[in-house]
Amino acid sequence: MTHVDSRGEARMVDVAGKEITLRVAVAAGRVVTTRDVLDLLRGRGVPKGDALGVARLAGIMAAKRTPDLIPLCHPIAIHGVTVDLTVTDDGVDIQATVRTADRTGVEMEALTSVAAAGLALIDMIKAVDPAAAIDGVRVLRKEGGKTGLWERGA
Amino acid sequence: MTHVDSRGEARMVDVAGKEITLRVAVAAGRVVTTRDVLDLLRGRGVPKGDALGVARLAGIMAAKRTPDLIPLCHPIAIHGVTVDLTVTDDGVDIQATVRTADRTGVEMEALTSVAAAGLALIDMIKAVDPAAAIDGVRVLRKEGGKTGLWERGA
Amino acid sequence: MTHVDSRGEARMVDVAGKEITLRVAVAAGRVVTTRDVLDLLRGRGVPKGDALGVARLAGIMAAKRTPDLIPLCHPIAIHGVTVDLTVTDDGVDIQATVRTADRTGVEMEALTSVAAAGLALIDMIKAVDPAAAIDGVRVLRKEGGKTGLWERGA
Amino acid sequence: MTHVDSRGEARMVDVAGKEITLRVAVAAGRVVTTRDVLDLLRGRGVPKGDALGVARLAGIMAAKRTPDLIPLCHPIAIHGVTVDLTVTDDGVDIQATVRTADRTGVEMEALTSVAAAGLALIDMIKAVDPAAAIDGVRVLRKEGGKTGLWERGA
Amino acid sequence: MTHVDSRGEARMVDVAGKEITLRVAVAAGRVVTTRDVLDLLRGRGVPKGDALGVARLAGIMAAKRTPDLIPLCHPIAIHGVTVDLTVTDDGVDIQATVRTADRTGVEMEALTSVAAAGLALIDMIKAVDPAAAIDGVRVLRKEGGKTGLWERGA
Amino acid sequence: MTHVDSRGEARMVDVAGKEITLRVAVAAGRVVTTRDVLDLLRGRGVPKGDALGVARLAGIMAAKRTPDLIPLCHPIAIHGVTVDLTVTDDGVDIQATVRTADRTGVEMEALTSVAAAGLALIDMIKAVDPAAAIDGVRVLRKEGGKTGLWERGA
Repeated sequence: MTHVDSRGEARMVDVAGKEITLRVAVAAGRVVTTRDVLDLLRGRGVPKGDALGVARLAGIMAAKRTPDLIPLCHPIAIHGVTVDLTVTDDGVDIQATVRTADRTGVEMEALTSVAAAGLALIDMIKAVDPAAAIDGVRVLRKEGGKTGLWERGA
Repeated sequence: MTHVDSRGEARMVDVAGKEITLRVAVAAGRVVTTRDVLDLLRGRGVPKGDALGVARLAGIMAAKRTPDLIPLCHPIAIHGVTVDLTVTDDGVDIQATVRTADRTGVEMEALTSVAAAGLALIDMIKAVDPAAAIDGVRVLRKEGGKTGLWERGA
Repeated sequence: MTHVDSRGEARMVDVAGKEITLRVAVAAGRVVTTRDVLDLLRGRGVPKGDALGVARLAGIMAAKRTPDLIPLCHPIAIHGVTVDLTVTDDGVDIQATVRTADRTGVEMEALTSVAAAGLALIDMIKAVDPAAAIDGVRVLRKEGGKTGLWERGA
Repeated sequence: MTHVDSRGEARMVDVAGKEITLRVAVAAGRVVTTRDVLDLLRGRGVPKGDALGVARLAGIMAAKRTPDLIPLCHPIAIHGVTVDLTVTDDGVDIQATVRTADRTGVEMEALTSVAAAGLALIDMIKAVDPAAAIDGVRVLRKEGGKTGLWERGA
Repeated sequence: MTHVDSRGEARMVDVAGKEITLRVAVAAGRVVTTRDVLDLLRGRGVPKGDALGVARLAGIMAAKRTPDLIPLCHPIAIHGVTVDLTVTDDGVDIQATVRTADRTGVEMEALTSVAAAGLALIDMIKAVDPAAAIDGVRVLRKEGGKTGLWERGA
Repeated sequence: MTHVDSRGEARMVDVAGKEITLRVAVAAGRVVTTRDVLDLLRGRGVPKGDALGVARLAGIMAAKRTPDLIPLCHPIAIHGVTVDLTVTDDGVDIQATVRTADRTGVEMEALTSVAAAGLALIDMIKAVDPAAAIDGVRVLRKEGGKTGLWERGA
């Protein structure tokens, strides 16, 4: 396992010797909620409002907070973040893309971004749907570094 | 929707007039991963190590960072946090309980705790299982305040 | 001066003995920019977009970060924040209102909120107007606590 | 506008492909206050004290917190910060210089530094002058990167 | 042990039921350094400068960051902090006093304040004395709450 | 002194022109406590538990927070951190090693890591030994950069 030595003790693994290369990670997830909430988010009968914009921004900002949240993550130069939210028939799809030119991958940053966008969205809809859930937070694709391209199977 | 005014603009809703009462929230979620990873986490053939302990601590600490991550969340006095991780046959179940005596509920703190524990766990297993995912991050139960008890249906 | 002892040395003044009362502070400021930028912010000829929403959220979130930024500020329970941005003929007016039920006033939180909203707005328009400036960051009104109501003269 | 895509949605623009070059930004601003406060800051009749030192340090530290405060700012390697405060006849002039060898400019860091120094100063003088204000927070000069030198007109 | 359940697993112990009372903690420590550094700190032959002021402020600010640093510490309302530094014949004595009206003690806040003041001082003198050390970081006195007064033996 | 200009005023010294080289710093310290606590930490008669693991993680995470705590420290790319805790006959020895490929040394990060691990350990044992202290927080060894190797004398 990463970040654990031969005795099982946690450590932040040394990446000082790794090369600076362009790295990209794409992660996704979904907030499952009710039809009523989805209508509100689409702006049916109410001002469309900031809800999706707040979730998007929470996702972008959380990518920068990843080393504060994930104990053994390296602080890393985040060079680009996009977070897309799409209202579908049974929820809100979230996809985050994080780019860097640094010594280690950014999949944790992309996953953290998706999770935070989902949490921020739930914070705004929880009065209407206290049962909303986040599902399928996972890496879709990862590029760059020694391991090269990894893509999630279909 | 919470945190949005009549024009749809985001604001942190005023809770200064709400009463200080005991409040509890329980949230859960699950990291889905491979049999190999689950064996490592159980300590089969390797030192059991810190992995679950790191995830547990990440969950506890993240509860305290909730207002930094969730843009419209109130900073709140977190008075107790427990995070339980259980290795099952097809993943790791995470459950977080957050307690406070304050003016607003702690379900966002419990959800953030579950999500962060899941992310920290994925950070440790991602070299072995790059496809690990977080599922079912949701509130199970919420007590206290004006709305009283809410429990998730079966 | 506040926060300075008789030798002139900085300290965080003790407020443990002060009463918990409802307190409100309103602060304002203005981003001065070009007609072209103001047209973009109004959505003339381009999608109106997230710019004002981002500034609003930056202002709300910064109120929560005040004790991190202002060395001698007490960490305080922020119970409500609204940030209003109004595009006028020669700039963008910013007004922030912060509410709490706590032991000390929230004027620094309101001022920090205005300053951060202004900075975030400049961050978004700086490619179009590198000369944009923030002016008149000041308290308009303060209520609650032992000193009671203070209002800025006309 | 920076940080906004063609639909007007916020994103952190990708700078991974930009070159690492020496970059400098100088920003300025001013705290407007009363003669009485200026006398206190000069040490007339009281120990001169830490007030200006606290504001200076708040400015230096805030440069490091810029990506936490400004939602779409890149986390950047801050390589040098100086903050100068000058007591004048009608206020306190603040000037901040931020240097880096990185992929993007540091004008937001310099502006944030000036704003935070001003806020910290107001925090210390607010009991004596509750009407103190921050004016003219603006970039004076910016060097390095593809756009090269930019200087504010007289 | 505090913060550990019967299986030895970390948790943030629940204090929601504890009473809000006035609590004070005093901690101390010492930076051991060379005569040359002590002369510089006293301003012999150079401007006295900000070094002690920076350390004092670092100590005050660190008290507020305690729950971020100490994983199982409760976030707590810090109501007053003083940090005193005294240049002696063989080092710099540091004493921090933290006050609160809250549900749990502030000895960790006082200890963190002393440690951070010591670290900040070492940061400023390390070019002159790379061997400087922090010694004797300990609680001197603790008041308030159910356990009442505790004082360190002579 | 570092970080102080010719007038004695604090500034973050400019390192933009320094070279990126591999740098390592090792720091150490010790928590002095009672025989009873040491037995608990060794797991005599109780589950061994998370206490040392929590302190280790606090040390690793604190290395990343150094620029937030130490006012004039540069934010730096932390590339590897290990924290070792050894229960001895009269206390717990702490040693932290921090590695980077960056423009300035990491001794402050290593010292901060040791101090935070010590504080976190005290937080867990303070109910059993309120008199526990941290001693001898100091740099053992420092490599890389223009000054090259520095080792503490015996």
